[in-house]
Amino acid sequence: MMAKTSMRAAVVRGDEIVVEDLPVPEPGPGEVLVKTLACGICGSDLHLFKHGRAMMQLVERLGGVPDNLTDGLVMGHEFVAQIERFGAGTSGTFAIGDRVCAVPFLKIDGAPVSIGASSRTIGAYAEYFLLNESGLIRIPDGLTTQAAALTEPLAIGVHAVAKGDVRNEDTAIVIGCGPIGLACIAVLKQRGVKRIIAADFSVKRRELAQQFGADEIVDARERSAFDGVGATEAAVIFECVGAPGMIDQIVKRAPVGARVVVAGICSQEDTFLPLLAVSKELSLLFVSFYRADEFEAALQMLASGAVDWRPWVTATVPLERVAEAFDLLQNSDRHAKILIAPTAVGETT
Amino acid sequence: MMAKTSMRAAVVRGDEIVVEDLPVPEPGPGEVLVKTLACGICGSDLHLFKHGRAMMQLVERLGGVPDNLTDGLVMGHEFVAQIERFGAGTSGTFAIGDRVCAVPFLKIDGAPVSIGASSRTIGAYAEYFLLNESGLIRIPDGLTTQAAALTEPLAIGVHAVAKGDVRNEDTAIVIGCGPIGLACIAVLKQRGVKRIIAADFSVKRRELAQQFGADEIVDARERSAFDGVGATEAAVIFECVGAPGMIDQIVKRAPVGARVVVAGICSQEDTFLPLLAVSKELSLLFVSFYRADEFEAALQMLASGAVDWRPWVTATVPLERVAEAFDLLQNSDRHAKILIAPTAVGETT
Repeated sequence: MMAKTSMRAAVVRGDEIVVEDLPVPEPGPGEVLVKTLACGICGSDLHLFKHGRAMMQLVERLGGVPDNLTDGLVMGHEFVAQIERFGAGTSGTFAIGDRVCAVPFLKIDGAPVSIGASSRTIGAYAEYFLLNESGLIRIPDGLTTQAAALTEPLAIGVHAVAKGDVRNEDTAIVIGCGPIGLACIAVLKQRGVKRIIAADFSVKRRELAQQFGADEIVDARERSAFDGVGATEAAVIFECVGAPGMIDQIVKRAPVGARVVVAGICSQEDTFLPLLAVSKELSLLFVSFYRADEFEAALQMLASGAVDWRPWVTATVPLERVAEAFDLLQNSDRHAKILIAPTAVGETT
Repeated sequence: MMAKTSMRAAVVRGDEIVVEDLPVPEPGPGEVLVKTLACGICGSDLHLFKHGRAMMQLVERLGGVPDNLTDGLVMGHEFVAQIERFGAGTSGTFAIGDRVCAVPFLKIDGAPVSIGASSRTIGAYAEYFLLNESGLIRIPDGLTTQAAALTEPLAIGVHAVAKGDVRNEDTAIVIGCGPIGLACIAVLKQRGVKRIIAADFSVKRRELAQQFGADEIVDARERSAFDGVGATEAAVIFECVGAPGMIDQIVKRAPVGARVVVAGICSQEDTFLPLLAVSKELSLLFVSFYRADEFEAALQMLASGAVDWRPWVTATVPLERVAEAFDLLQNSDRHAKILIAPTAVGETT
């Protein structure tokens, strides 16, 4: 059978995401061509799609040369893929057909370039893309593709909880129960943290937070997550919303000495009161990325069955429905994680 | 000789600091009356004097009941004192005439109340004030009173450097070389940190920074402290200015993964770009207060001669010149630390 030379991909074109035919990329030395089995839609993808132009302007304003994020970008960094073809100089440790995942970077001229957030790579919102052989991680046999696709967001949770240096006797307060908030809750629960408070506007997300292990659920419209927390209670707070004003609110309400892990991405200028942060000796720990060992720890957590991942995936859609899925994730509170199955025929869930 | 019943103190009265006669306080159970030998003027004193009303309004805005900071406050928390009289139930571990210092809190109804920043206590800008016997720390015999008076600001440096978790191979960047910046530099140097960059507008303060151990001195008017620092260089940054916009500038220029210890007190709302802090995984570690063991470590540093404290003290003044000293510290770059000697006659330096 002749190798395919053309593939479908969901491509950012200004305010739209459209399915286009692109050439199948050719694996260079040390690279492998992989076929996408599943790829999660990340909150940062929604953000990049909505604020791509603003982010490019920001890079310019800071004196940099912005990547083209608004015309031709193929996103997708939460992937499970299958090895399709090897480039030159690969070692043969893996076999064609092996299911793999990887920390989403591709080495270009020796430097790591983001997969799924750079115009210099093709992300997993496509039938095929490239990975470095050296970065491949085999998916354990017993682990479903859907579950394995949650490795990447769960790794953010592993990293955030590690950054927060959470002890079991600390009160953990998770603000925002989107995928990253849920990942934090899952990891906190698995670590044995005694009191996990989770706040969100959405009924669905509060339900998910409870399923993932939150002990107290707060409707953020009705009251503050801090209402039942003492002014000197040992607390670690996870900001997983990313809207302007969140840091200000947290600084105002956080107990003395709290560590605040900021995983939400607020790309606008934001305002807060440093005096309060100083007087309470708060720590604002901004996180965006896990280490390779944290990524592997997340995969192991899923493989061990420690996290019931099923409530997390609220839909699986083909490439043709990526635009619709983006819309649903931004405008409905029914969804948590939507997976894309680029090579599937029709809708699978 | 009958005990004095009246004493002089420098008292905040609105926009002025005036010397008034106050009753000598009576030591209660477990308390000792001490005579002030020396007390440093702290940047936070200048701040409290200048922004007392705004801080009271902020407390009100946050739903609290503000302390009266603008009428009757006696500041002073960087003190060395001499034991004058014991209250009931004291153990006799110390003797009258012993030179002592202490973490500046007085227990009132069992709860610690700040000495020198609360209307409920009298600070060391007075001839006499009260301390708890249990908190007294003896000044080592070989240590001069002037040097011992620097224990408190140096303790902030000990605490800030500990909070920054600085390793010797990290680049330390100190923004602002007032007393806290200098304390950070002294501690960094003593710890063996290899590269200490210090930035300030003032020639005098840059000179002091160099004397305290900074390896590179930056005139903040001419260039950025970050100009010679690589984008991925391991760095710990000390924000010791406290003006609006400092955090924004640091977040923009800090290397990836930097820890930013914020010791400067900015009491206005301040604006920054969380997206940048997230993408670089910065940590903003706000500090205001040391632990008791850090205070003792600072005293030991001074006693051991590890810090040449002499350039730090640029003047010693009597109570009558406190208002003038405040003015000098706010409007001249000639001074670093000014000590008050409330019981001295005339000017001592």
